[in-house]
Amino acid sequence: MEAKAFPMNGGDGAYSYTKNSQFQRASLNAAKDMIKEAIAEKFDITSLNSDTIRMADLGCSVGPNTFIAMQNVLEAMVDSNQTSKEFQVFFSDHVSNDFNTLFASLPPDRHYFAAGVPGSFHGRLFPKSSLHLVHSSYALQWLSEVPEELLDKSSVAWNKGRINYTSASEQVATAYATQFAKDMDIFLSSRADEIAAGGMMILIMPALPDEVHHSKLPAGVLFRFLEQSLTEMVKAGSITEAEVDSFNLPVYAPTPTEMTRLVERNGCFKVERIELTDPRAKFDGPLDITALIMHIRAGFEGILTKHFGSEIIDELFERTMNKSAEISTQLEASYSKGTQLLLVLKRK
Amino acid sequence: MEAKAFPMNGGDGAYSYTKNSQFQRASLNAAKDMIKEAIAEKFDITSLNSDTIRMADLGCSVGPNTFIAMQNVLEAMVDSNQTSKEFQVFFSDHVSNDFNTLFASLPPDRHYFAAGVPGSFHGRLFPKSSLHLVHSSYALQWLSEVPEELLDKSSVAWNKGRINYTSASEQVATAYATQFAKDMDIFLSSRADEIAAGGMMILIMPALPDEVHHSKLPAGVLFRFLEQSLTEMVKAGSITEAEVDSFNLPVYAPTPTEMTRLVERNGCFKVERIELTDPRAKFDGPLDITALIMHIRAGFEGILTKHFGSEIIDELFERTMNKSAEISTQLEASYSKGTQLLLVLKRK
Repeated sequence: MEAKAFPMNGGDGAYSYTKNSQFQRASLNAAKDMIKEAIAEKFDITSLNSDTIRMADLGCSVGPNTFIAMQNVLEAMVDSNQTSKEFQVFFSDHVSNDFNTLFASLPPDRHYFAAGVPGSFHGRLFPKSSLHLVHSSYALQWLSEVPEELLDKSSVAWNKGRINYTSASEQVATAYATQFAKDMDIFLSSRADEIAAGGMMILIMPALPDEVHHSKLPAGVLFRFLEQSLTEMVKAGSITEAEVDSFNLPVYAPTPTEMTRLVERNGCFKVERIELTDPRAKFDGPLDITALIMHIRAGFEGILTKHFGSEIIDELFERTMNKSAEISTQLEASYSKGTQLLLVLKRK
Repeated sequence: MEAKAFPMNGGDGAYSYTKNSQFQRASLNAAKDMIKEAIAEKFDITSLNSDTIRMADLGCSVGPNTFIAMQNVLEAMVDSNQTSKEFQVFFSDHVSNDFNTLFASLPPDRHYFAAGVPGSFHGRLFPKSSLHLVHSSYALQWLSEVPEELLDKSSVAWNKGRINYTSASEQVATAYATQFAKDMDIFLSSRADEIAAGGMMILIMPALPDEVHHSKLPAGVLFRFLEQSLTEMVKAGSITEAEVDSFNLPVYAPTPTEMTRLVERNGCFKVERIELTDPRAKFDGPLDITALIMHIRAGFEGILTKHFGSEIIDELFERTMNKSAEISTQLEASYSKGTQLLLVLKRK
């Protein structure tokens, strides 16, 4: 089954992902030094039995973050290894991703051969043992589908009135966790087929510190305010209650312990490094809530439009924008030390 | 220098390449059996030192012809070799090609991993020795640029009032041939870097039989009628004379002897097979001139729009459509035995 695809907003207009991905970029910067270190210590280019180093960014979206990330990885490789090898970088995302925009904005001075690969990473995308380094940043939180129980009125996990697990019952959270575990196993097994011996995987994703309850997730704050706006819109008659009941954002943030367990259970990769970082540490000054909401819009407009129709989007985000002050207060309080997970895995 | 890119019409509307590429498809069918034969005789999968067979279609446009062509090649390989190898197919065209449409229409039941590669084939696109089979159909006739002399009023090759060499002076034809020779040398050297030892290249392109003068080319008939329509439009005041004088379609059809000489001069490939075929042989009944003009529009609208602006396109093709009867008569007379060249080259 093809995984559900909800692409980031394409093009480069005001609501595009291209123009609204500065939060992911901050995360990228936070991870940059750790990635350099991991590659210097754990990735031995010279031992690879190939004249070409093949890298992939999974869930690349439309840039520019994917170019910056791949450049970082490539520099780390070249710095720590004198090499005459050539590099090929595969930018991969769902078929519905805007590859035209991605290709048009490829850095002209890149030192690699570029290719685009359309398809879901919840399945095979590349030939056997053909990759040496796989990178994925802020993509693995997307589930391949919404767990069925959430839509089943007779289930204890029916997610009435909620749009995610962060503000919902433990049963709903369990349904999300179970789906995530299933998706991760398919992801890891697919990559295990594709990554050559000695190859490495660098995963960056939102996460929940082990000791924190999921209701405290900063993303959860934003989801709750979106939820609130949707509830207001039901009252105002813009959408129906049933539409809200049947809508669930298929994103999930695991804990480090949970991820370690999933990788170990899968058995194909060795955990070289697992670390929580604080993406906010690199921000100066107060959070720009307007930018943050625009960012959420760029990321979720696709899935919201598919469910509710495009005509409600402006109202939804205007209503959410009006809650900026409240969102800001709750976000400042919610941010716990580390909500970004960096995971370095090596193919066994 | 980046080669000039004039993409086929994207999307799948009435004027799209997707809906107007049946003539290329006919050519594809004419070449199919010869390709199967060439692969069976000259391509030894088992001798290749790779678990993955990597193929590329250069100048793939948006489909569906590229999928049919790659499927033919793949079947020929699998039929003639029992193999457990996996296949990766790279679909390559200019950055401005509509890769979104291409990716959305990939055959769901394909037995290969697909990737898109944006860029000009007049230069490197892939890592060293990374490809095993390169295919290109009806793309090599595009020059990387219009030869300068054609725009130089002081040159004997100034191409006043003409839009191609097919109806122009011998000096203009020589300027085209010189540019084509330069482009082919860069093309062959780039592919020589990219194709592994034992790898093969299959090229299909419009060509001129050795004994025929270029003014007799069927494509030349169409260009002359386009030229006539443009001249009428100068008189009607829709465009200026200078605009017509400075416009040249950068497409060229070599003779088999000319191609053989260019391949030999380059020195990296051995000519395994070179053959002229008649793409019309597979057509039943009279030529559908309306479809043919639509086809020309899908292929050349990009470059015409860039030079003349989009507002003159409808008028230009309406005027040309009105000449259908005349075009038909001249085309029936012009078609010589073989105007499609199939070239099978092996990496030395």
